[in-house]
Formats: sequence, C-alpha cells, structure tokens
Amino acid sequence: MTKNTKVNAAILIIGNEILSGRTQDTNTGTLANWLNSIGVKLVEVRVVPDDEKIIIDSLNLLRKKYDYVFTTGGIGPTHDDITAQSVAKAFDKKYEIHKEAFKILESYYKPGEFNEGRQKMVWMPKDAQLILNPTSGAPGFSIENVFCLPGVPSILKSMLGGLKNRIIGGQPVLSNTISLRTVESEIANSLKKVQDKNKDVEIGSYPFFHAGKLGVSIVLRSENQSSIDDCNSQILEFVNEKKIEVVDR
Amino acid sequence: MTKNTKVNAAILIIGNEILSGRTQDTNTGTLANWLNSIGVKLVEVRVVPDDEKIIIDSLNLLRKKYDYVFTTGGIGPTHDDITAQSVAKAFDKKYEIHKEAFKILESYYKPGEFNEGRQKMVWMPKDAQLILNPTSGAPGFSIENVFCLPGVPSILKSMLGGLKNRIIGGQPVLSNTISLRTVESEIANSLKKVQDKNKDVEIGSYPFFHAGKLGVSIVLRSENQSSIDDCNSQILEFVNEKKIEVVDR
Repeated sequence: MTKNTKVNAAILIIGNEILSGRTQDTNTGTLANWLNSIGVKLVEVRVVPDDEKIIIDSLNLLRKKYDYVFTTGGIGPTHDDITAQSVAKAFDKKYEIHKEAFKILESYYKPGEFNEGRQKMVWMPKDAQLILNPTSGAPGFSIENVFCLPGVPSILKSMLGGLKNRIIGGQPVLSNTISLRTVESEIANSLKKVQDKNKDVEIGSYPFFHAGKLGVSIVLRSENQSSIDDCNSQILEFVNEKKIEVVDR
Repeated sequence: MTKNTKVNAAILIIGNEILSGRTQDTNTGTLANWLNSIGVKLVEVRVVPDDEKIIIDSLNLLRKKYDYVFTTGGIGPTHDDITAQSVAKAFDKKYEIHKEAFKILESYYKPGEFNEGRQKMVWMPKDAQLILNPTSGAPGFSIENVFCLPGVPSILKSMLGGLKNRIIGGQPVLSNTISLRTVESEIANSLKKVQDKNKDVEIGSYPFFHAGKLGVSIVLRSENQSSIDDCNSQILEFVNEKKIEVVDR
C-alpha cells in the first residue's frame, strides 16, 4: 500500500519501567518526529526488559533488518543499566573503558567526584563512537548502525542535534492534515476510493474528540508534494459534495 | 536476573500514526498496569505499521511465544483499519460477518444509520469471540490467545473490565518504591550488593527531577511481600549509613 522511503530505522526501548507501566515512554515520539525530519522512516519499535539475552537477540535481529537502530535506556551507573555490555556482546566486541569518555567525565565532575559508580558509564564496546551529551555529561555511543541513547527524555532530546551528520537520510516525508466535523463511517467509502487512486500517498484516518465535539483528521503522507496536493483536492471534492464542515484541529 | 511470573503477555500496537510521531501511545501503560493487577507479566511490546504482511508475521510469532497477545488499533471502519482481516489470515480463518456483532451494531445505531462503513466493523475472523464495548458500540474480539482492542485510549480502557474473566493470571507482582534525595552514582555499588543478595526481587533505579530537585526512585518488584520487605530494610540500612534523605515522590 505504502511506498517506502529508502532509509529506514527501528527503535529498541530497553526498560522494565515501561513494561511495568510505571513510566510512560515518550522517546518514541521524539525520535519518530526527528527521524521524519531527516528523511528516515521509522518502521518498528520494540520494548524489551533489562534482560541481556533478550537485548542481544533483539538487537542482532533489528540491526540486520534496518538501516539504523536506536536504543534508549540502560546506560546509567546502576546494576540495572546493562545496555552497553549487551551491545558489546551482540557485536562480539570487548567491553572496555572508552578513553575519550573517561576524559570527558573526569573533567565534567569536581575532583574526587568521579567515583566508581560514575566510571561505569565510560565502559563501552570497543570501537564505539561517542554521542556527546550537552545536558549531563555522560555520553551515549554508536557502533556501526546502532545508536545508544539514554532513557531520560530531556537528555535524549538534547543529544539528537549532535547526531544529525552521522545519519544519512532519504527524501523527507511530507504531510498534510484535513480535519472534518464528521465520523469515520460517513467518509470511509469515499476515502477508500481516493486511497485506491493515489497509491503513492499514505492516507490515515484518525477520529478525535475535541472541545466536546467529534471529528476525523485525515492525514496525507508522501515524499511528493504534488501527490499530496492532488489527493487533497480529491478529498475536498467529496467533502463538499457531502456538505461536511472542514475544521481547525 | 528476574524471576518470571508464570503468565506472560505481549502487546502488538498497530498504527502508522505512532511510528510517524503524530500520536503518542498511551495504551501500553494502560494495559501494563491492568495486566500487573491480574498477575500477567508484560514481556514485550511491538509497534508495527498498517501493513498486512508485517501484522501477520508479528502476530504469528508473538502468539506462539507468549501466553496472551493484545493488539491495539486498526479495527475501525476506514481503509487503513486492517487488523481483523490480518488476524483472520494469521489464523488461517475465514474473514466473515460476525452475526452477534451485526445484531449489536444494528440495534446500537438509529434506523438507516448502520451503513456500509459501519458494517465493516462486524467483519471478523470465523469463531471470534466478542469483546463488548460499553463506550461506542463496535466490539473488539478475541481468537484463541489473541485479544484485539481499539486504538482510541478511552474506548480501550472501557473494554478491559469485560475481559477480566477471560484472562487467567498468575501471582500478581507486588512493588514498593523508595525515593531518595541523591544521584544514582552515589548508591550504585550498595544497590548492586543488595540486588546480588536478593535474586527474587527485581530492583530498578530511576533518576527523577521534581520540583527543582534531583532524586532517585528505587523500585522493588516481587511476587513475595516478605522478600520486598527484607530488601527494603537492606536498602534503608545503607541509606542511613550514607545519611541520604528519604523523600516523598
């Protein structure tokens, strides 16, 4: 149904706290929007527990299947932070002190504060490239097509800027949204006809309930602006015929 | 590291809107908390696009690997709602009108309103069992160990009550949280020692930033209350020794 962009990615979210319901993941949304903006299509997300074997198996599958893999979580100083050692095993690399990371954290902390707990954060797979952390010092790292980021959303966000030149994206996906004062079942058939005629546009239909009123947002996504425009006109045609109100959302 | 509860589950989130970053998933948290409360351990979440082949492959893998699988999204009336037909193919079942669902929606809508769009929502895999929808009429369905729920969070939530007797859970996982005015690296070593001595408690460490102050929440999870209590005492012991303040969070 959908024409794929050429460059794709997956996210591997590592963390018991998401699976227990304690923490609401927001990193998927952050990464999805950022990947979109640089022309990388997010195709799969997996959430797995802090379990070495599961992390290794998932990562080895995803890194072969997709152009890029982003992991989030598990790179802090405590015993449940096992991402770096798991990634080292997945790549069959030595797990060792990263000299540059050591220097960064040594000068980041006051004398005497760079203790054993903090030193755990400079252990990485051999040959890892650092991803600098402008918020809290401790860097993430990449190895081949895998990029390991922290789980704390504000820190993850602050690290994406430094990654931009290391990801080679394709054509960014453009989008347009039309919001209507209607329900899905009133437009389902007409919308399907438009989708069937416009194979290079992905048409999504999303009901909403906003300010006490029901509506439907139709989202058009394509690499090609003129395809979106054509599709947009065809939708407005049946919308006018059916006397459906177009609304802001 | 972690002792598994006996009954486990996975979630398959079906929806381009999550992968594009347009919509923030909240159903994982809802389902995770609910599964916890009935003694089912959520072990994996996957987010996949509205793509029949990917849905079929993911579902066939997950339903063999876990006791229960919950899908969210893709059961509405529009062309991008392809969950029911994909599940039918995954189980090699006929995709057909479910008579009971037809009756429910026929009487739910006013005469003349049960149009072709709405009728799409009563097509299901043969032998599907309905999951009643107290919010908006259109039922979800289950087949064997797979439970198909809608993507709209408020509707999904309202349908869980009716499911409780159809899921056979194990021992519920109990938890206790200790919040400390400290940073992870100050307690990492002591915490690891407690984890090493208490294999049947899963100890998670989560930094937080709340009301302008940094802290760490330590979460203890186990099926066994006395194991949690023991672990709790051992943590408070090193917390007192280090003169770390215990805080409300």
